[in-house]
Amino acid sequence: MSDTPLASPMTPDAPPPMAKPVAKPMTKTRLEAFSDGVIAIIITIMVLELHTPDSVSVEALLHILPTFLLYALSFIYVGIYWNNHHHLLHATQRINGATLWANSHLLFWLSLVPFSTRWMGESDFATIPTAFYGFTLLMPSIAYYILVRVLIACNGQNSLLTTAIGKDVKGMISTGLYIAGIALTFWNSFAGLACYVAVALIWLVPDRRIEHD
Amino acid sequence: MSDTPLASPMTPDAPPPMAKPVAKPMTKTRLEAFSDGVIAIIITIMVLELHTPDSVSVEALLHILPTFLLYALSFIYVGIYWNNHHHLLHATQRINGATLWANSHLLFWLSLVPFSTRWMGESDFATIPTAFYGFTLLMPSIAYYILVRVLIACNGQNSLLTTAIGKDVKGMISTGLYIAGIALTFWNSFAGLACYVAVALIWLVPDRRIEHD
Amino acid sequence: MSDTPLASPMTPDAPPPMAKPVAKPMTKTRLEAFSDGVIAIIITIMVLELHTPDSVSVEALLHILPTFLLYALSFIYVGIYWNNHHHLLHATQRINGATLWANSHLLFWLSLVPFSTRWMGESDFATIPTAFYGFTLLMPSIAYYILVRVLIACNGQNSLLTTAIGKDVKGMISTGLYIAGIALTFWNSFAGLACYVAVALIWLVPDRRIEHD
Amino acid sequence: MSDTPLASPMTPDAPPPMAKPVAKPMTKTRLEAFSDGVIAIIITIMVLELHTPDSVSVEALLHILPTFLLYALSFIYVGIYWNNHHHLLHATQRINGATLWANSHLLFWLSLVPFSTRWMGESDFATIPTAFYGFTLLMPSIAYYILVRVLIACNGQNSLLTTAIGKDVKGMISTGLYIAGIALTFWNSFAGLACYVAVALIWLVPDRRIEHD
Repeated sequence: MSDTPLASPMTPDAPPPMAKPVAKPMTKTRLEAFSDGVIAIIITIMVLELHTPDSVSVEALLHILPTFLLYALSFIYVGIYWNNHHHLLHATQRINGATLWANSHLLFWLSLVPFSTRWMGESDFATIPTAFYGFTLLMPSIAYYILVRVLIACNGQNSLLTTAIGKDVKGMISTGLYIAGIALTFWNSFAGLACYVAVALIWLVPDRRIEHD
Repeated sequence: MSDTPLASPMTPDAPPPMAKPVAKPMTKTRLEAFSDGVIAIIITIMVLELHTPDSVSVEALLHILPTFLLYALSFIYVGIYWNNHHHLLHATQRINGATLWANSHLLFWLSLVPFSTRWMGESDFATIPTAFYGFTLLMPSIAYYILVRVLIACNGQNSLLTTAIGKDVKGMISTGLYIAGIALTFWNSFAGLACYVAVALIWLVPDRRIEHD
Repeated sequence: MSDTPLASPMTPDAPPPMAKPVAKPMTKTRLEAFSDGVIAIIITIMVLELHTPDSVSVEALLHILPTFLLYALSFIYVGIYWNNHHHLLHATQRINGATLWANSHLLFWLSLVPFSTRWMGESDFATIPTAFYGFTLLMPSIAYYILVRVLIACNGQNSLLTTAIGKDVKGMISTGLYIAGIALTFWNSFAGLACYVAVALIWLVPDRRIEHD
Repeated sequence: MSDTPLASPMTPDAPPPMAKPVAKPMTKTRLEAFSDGVIAIIITIMVLELHTPDSVSVEALLHILPTFLLYALSFIYVGIYWNNHHHLLHATQRINGATLWANSHLLFWLSLVPFSTRWMGESDFATIPTAFYGFTLLMPSIAYYILVRVLIACNGQNSLLTTAIGKDVKGMISTGLYIAGIALTFWNSFAGLACYVAVALIWLVPDRRIEHD
């Protein structure tokens, strides 16, 4: 016992000191921390894209108001994903390797939101950039759905997670609204934008499914 | 025992032993981690805005001294919010979905500080940018007040939080000074700036209300 | 008992009851948190390098598709390192001062990936930038190997870590493919790039060595 | 008992359920997390300053080699502070409000390193920028000293921290070398730079004072 390097204290979840050490199950702490870091950066670097007004008048400030509101909208979308990710991982009890990739996949699509926000803002809401903006909102919603499926596969059909997620009606409506918004953009950019804004509104009500189920 | 939703806590990784798993209350760990991430980025990206001096002389360095001091001032404001946020969440025992949004709302306004700092610096303290800078300091103070109210509603009137916050005289004085500063800016930018600096000074004394109550 | 430096562990905040306090062993929590932060920033700031299309047409969007795919590729590489780092530290029970430097060394080389990605993208896959991109992928793989050795030296040959890592065939194949890719670049950039892509593909299968050993 | 909102489980370090709730001592977790975030960003955004070579030749790559080495040097300095901060906080058992400000003070000066690195690189190691670079290395070393004093005042003369820190000979030598380097810069920039490099070298040996005392 005294010569095994594994018998030390201070490793609160250390495996029992058997001959061949065994692996501990993965914990979700670092997955949450990494996701928090990436989402925090995505949500914050968008403000770096904001150009200062051309002059020091109130008119110049009002001139950038649409860009400003667009920034606020993207802030809300990324904030929604952070909130939902928080609720989702909170209800999760196990993760595995597939979870890590499904999570990175979600973060990848979210990381494009600052890019599409910038392009749409620069283009004054032209058709293609506005449709592309919708695309960069649609893809995270699909990636989030995949992440939920992978987590449920890992945690079991009878788990807290499955009960907590339920039918995810809000998620399905959101995906539908994004697709509708992209299509509408080709008729009128602002009709498409209205669909995107509708998604933000239905999520601003806190998601009580997991928290209080 | 069987009807309490808090049964078998503290073993987050264990599979629930009951037929229908129940949700755990939300913990504040991730809220703190996400806020730390966002505030760390806000406070750090401001230095990216600092333009290097035009030449390699001491004069050129002194020429950017006002911008440098402005950066230091904004660093202090964001640092104040991190400190207070730390104290506030430290005294908090429960959070809910409304808390997440109130917190994101605070982070949104804080995220505009690098933008307003840049504009005020570029404009050499013109009236509108200096007033707008005050606005981006005022809004977080209001958002912070809302966050405190939401947290108290969630934690209860008799909670540690309520006792710790007390009357928040400093917070009310700060909000008043920001409003006064914005108004004074239209008379003289530096009078407004003096009000903002006064707020920084009253907060640099560590907040002992929560820590040592 | 009195000569063990590990006495009274697990009560990190309690004042030591002995005359001369003794040091606790280092924990890996902060090493993980700092690495998560740096990797999260590396993976996210790459999107800041993406230039918006020149016009608002689908053609302009397709024109930046290679740059976009390059961004996705770099995202995957950095994601691979985060995943492997997660698995590696998960199996680690002790760290020491040498570990901190070996870890920073890995982070240093990873931090060059956004730079080399940008150069290769700007140069339209010219020979030297493409070889340099391979170099900035090769160096982290060597730094990762060093980190593994340092961790094994610290944790002992009989530790969970040693068992979990095994022969690291994937790691050796990756390093070989990077070297081959750099060499091939001087014949044809896209042959080199194909080698790099091959590495990404062999890692996208989740690493089950540590997780399920 | 049943009507107090504080008697719930799941708050592992909750105060005992007395009539008037009492404050818990501050924990260092968030201080570490915030510092990790800020230092991670400082160390990573420096690579954003690296300009890609003008052409796609090896010569163009070699042309930016001094800037590259300068980046590596600044990476090492910030890494040294992270390492030392890690060791310091590891040995710390208590923090207070003054600690938060002393820590933010250190982070402020560290946040200027990317700025001074950029200026010195752009100026091809001119006198004033090189001296200013030394200044932005000197100030964190002073801020670190203040942080150590504040922590010792908070933890007590007999604490683990005091024992672990010892005389801090390395720290004093570093501060001396920075001052010497700044002075030497006015004779020859590279003599000053040599002093700065010497500091990096004496720290690259892991600090065993706290770890193994």
